[in-house]
Amino acid sequence: MRAAMNTKTGRSSLQLHSTAKKNGEMELSLATVTEPNPGPDEVMVRIDAAPINPSDLGLLLGAADWNSAKVSGTRSNPTVTAPMSAKVLQAMAARIDIPMPVGNEGAGVVIEAGKSDAAQALLGKTVAVLGGAMYSQYRCLNVNQCLSLPPGATAADGASSFVNPLTALGMIGTMQREGHKALVHTAAASNLGQMLNRLCLKDHIGLVNIVRKKEQEELLQAAGAVHVCRTDSPTFMQDLTEAVATTGATLGFDAIGGGPLAGQILTCMEAAANRNAKAYSRYGSTTYKQVYLYGSLDMSPTVLNRNYGMAWGIGGWLLTPFIEKIGPAAFQALKQRVAAELKTTFASHYSQEISLVEALQPETIAAYSKRSTGQKYLVTPNKGL
Amino acid sequence: MRAAMNTKTGRSSLQLHSTAKKNGEMELSLATVTEPNPGPDEVMVRIDAAPINPSDLGLLLGAADWNSAKVSGTRSNPTVTAPMSAKVLQAMAARIDIPMPVGNEGAGVVIEAGKSDAAQALLGKTVAVLGGAMYSQYRCLNVNQCLSLPPGATAADGASSFVNPLTALGMIGTMQREGHKALVHTAAASNLGQMLNRLCLKDHIGLVNIVRKKEQEELLQAAGAVHVCRTDSPTFMQDLTEAVATTGATLGFDAIGGGPLAGQILTCMEAAANRNAKAYSRYGSTTYKQVYLYGSLDMSPTVLNRNYGMAWGIGGWLLTPFIEKIGPAAFQALKQRVAAELKTTFASHYSQEISLVEALQPETIAAYSKRSTGQKYLVTPNKGL
Repeated sequence: MRAAMNTKTGRSSLQLHSTAKKNGEMELSLATVTEPNPGPDEVMVRIDAAPINPSDLGLLLGAADWNSAKVSGTRSNPTVTAPMSAKVLQAMAARIDIPMPVGNEGAGVVIEAGKSDAAQALLGKTVAVLGGAMYSQYRCLNVNQCLSLPPGATAADGASSFVNPLTALGMIGTMQREGHKALVHTAAASNLGQMLNRLCLKDHIGLVNIVRKKEQEELLQAAGAVHVCRTDSPTFMQDLTEAVATTGATLGFDAIGGGPLAGQILTCMEAAANRNAKAYSRYGSTTYKQVYLYGSLDMSPTVLNRNYGMAWGIGGWLLTPFIEKIGPAAFQALKQRVAAELKTTFASHYSQEISLVEALQPETIAAYSKRSTGQKYLVTPNKGL
Repeated sequence: MRAAMNTKTGRSSLQLHSTAKKNGEMELSLATVTEPNPGPDEVMVRIDAAPINPSDLGLLLGAADWNSAKVSGTRSNPTVTAPMSAKVLQAMAARIDIPMPVGNEGAGVVIEAGKSDAAQALLGKTVAVLGGAMYSQYRCLNVNQCLSLPPGATAADGASSFVNPLTALGMIGTMQREGHKALVHTAAASNLGQMLNRLCLKDHIGLVNIVRKKEQEELLQAAGAVHVCRTDSPTFMQDLTEAVATTGATLGFDAIGGGPLAGQILTCMEAAANRNAKAYSRYGSTTYKQVYLYGSLDMSPTVLNRNYGMAWGIGGWLLTPFIEKIGPAAFQALKQRVAAELKTTFASHYSQEISLVEALQPETIAAYSKRSTGQKYLVTPNKGL
């Protein structure tokens, strides 16, 4: 066990680093860094749980070939490397030889606190935290980056309090701000998708869930989903058009990114809009249709056949700009809702808990990099140390 | 000569019709229709000139195979038909067997006027008109659809007062409303592109012109264009990035639609934005980049490789919704500017003048359907009758 040392200049902390190296290798390693002592408005959090979200995998693994991973170093301080193609290496230009800490969110116990009342109030509390580098033993964070968990909630309960819950709430918020009344969501059996389904059911918002397979359809139906369309069905386009017409969905959030799917959603929205068309218009319907790409599960190009008139848009969507748009008060309200519904609407489930050392094992990397439905990994940075 | 009859119920007028027929043929023919006598706020305009704009060709020709066109009927009243593929026929479902009049804009002389002062004021005047069905001898139109031309301007001078001038002004207006400071434009040697170039030079707005060929580059340079990038150059992407960085353009208008070009513009905008990046961000720059597709010269799918972070959008753009957004007062101001600069900034040049009968000749259709640079056709509906 490597103990974390507390000194005048800070606390020693083991931290997972991902480094794209000039020699063409992507390297994962554990470094010992020093977290500074908390300032007046800061707290030191012992990170007990941090999820591996799809949004962490890009920074963590890049697009290296992890099937060809090689391990070196010692059992308790291993290093794992995987080769990158020349094209991937080029895309990494801005991070070459810079060790990147990883992990957008987590939860743990406040073990030290700065002088301010806000910081002192958190001492001993279990908090959810947002801010990067969460695959670390300790993190010194501003009180604004912490969300005090309700009594009885563990670090594992609160580890995913930000990314998925706020993304689901951000989709609903975007829908409301941009004047749409229902949603289409792809990769809808994901942890996020299941959460969005619970949220829409609770808030009485129409949701069309798109999945690839029968098991995913059944999973969502068991959770009460009203509209589930399967891309592997020969009637997919008809089914989607029907569900879009029924719900009035004119906004989609797509986690896939590549291929025809985003365009197919627009095609079905246009077909639904034209059901009530009274005259031919060569520019299509005047119903505005939007699909946001928030993920890139398929890295291949997005292909748009543009058979949906002229009133459409496609673009990238990220949580951070949405939070900036709504302002601090609205953001605070969203966080309070997450805390209040942490064990219901916003509950996350993990299939595996792994230590920092286990996160570097090739077979474990192979498993969590798959992003399979129902497989979600929780890193426990203080386990086994 | 077929004279136009004026009766109690209206004026007989020859009108070009495009009909997608259930049997799989697209048909162009001349029909005799009755234009109603003008109401109080209406005027009867003898259409002396109406351009064939790219935006007219979709309705006029569909996607039929005009290389296999067949002529029937008489010399003075011909009918021309061309076969459509099953897929094209399906896309025409909403207009099957409905004769569609064509021609978005034109100009001519007011030969009758309603009782209102506004209508009477136009009597005898040469006016530019907007409102469809302009490949007609006569059109009864509301005074709001007419723009009185300055003294000395002919119908040919004023025939293209709306579509191209307002589109160019609409691009600038969209840029201003959406917070961009410079523009990228594709197919930039088109009549519209040359007009946009003159407008941007006059208004001191940065414009990056994208063209396919050396002749088009030279044409724009001779007109004073500062930035011209050629897609046939091996340094196209570097050239475009440089021009985008110099102008600060974060908004593009693309007439091509299909293929990689819209995405390439975003790629170069992102590369320009990242020139000043201080740290690696896996989500790309925070600079918002937008490309609007306003045409579809390439009907193939739009291909987006998404190597430009998350702050981007692509969508359709049409003049009409823009005009609705800005409201009547701003629209009126734009029209007045067009009238004031009709022979300078907004001048259009025609390579050919054709009658309604000539517009139906296969060799003429073959020529104007090519949309070649420098080839612009003017229909003169009262010529040769």
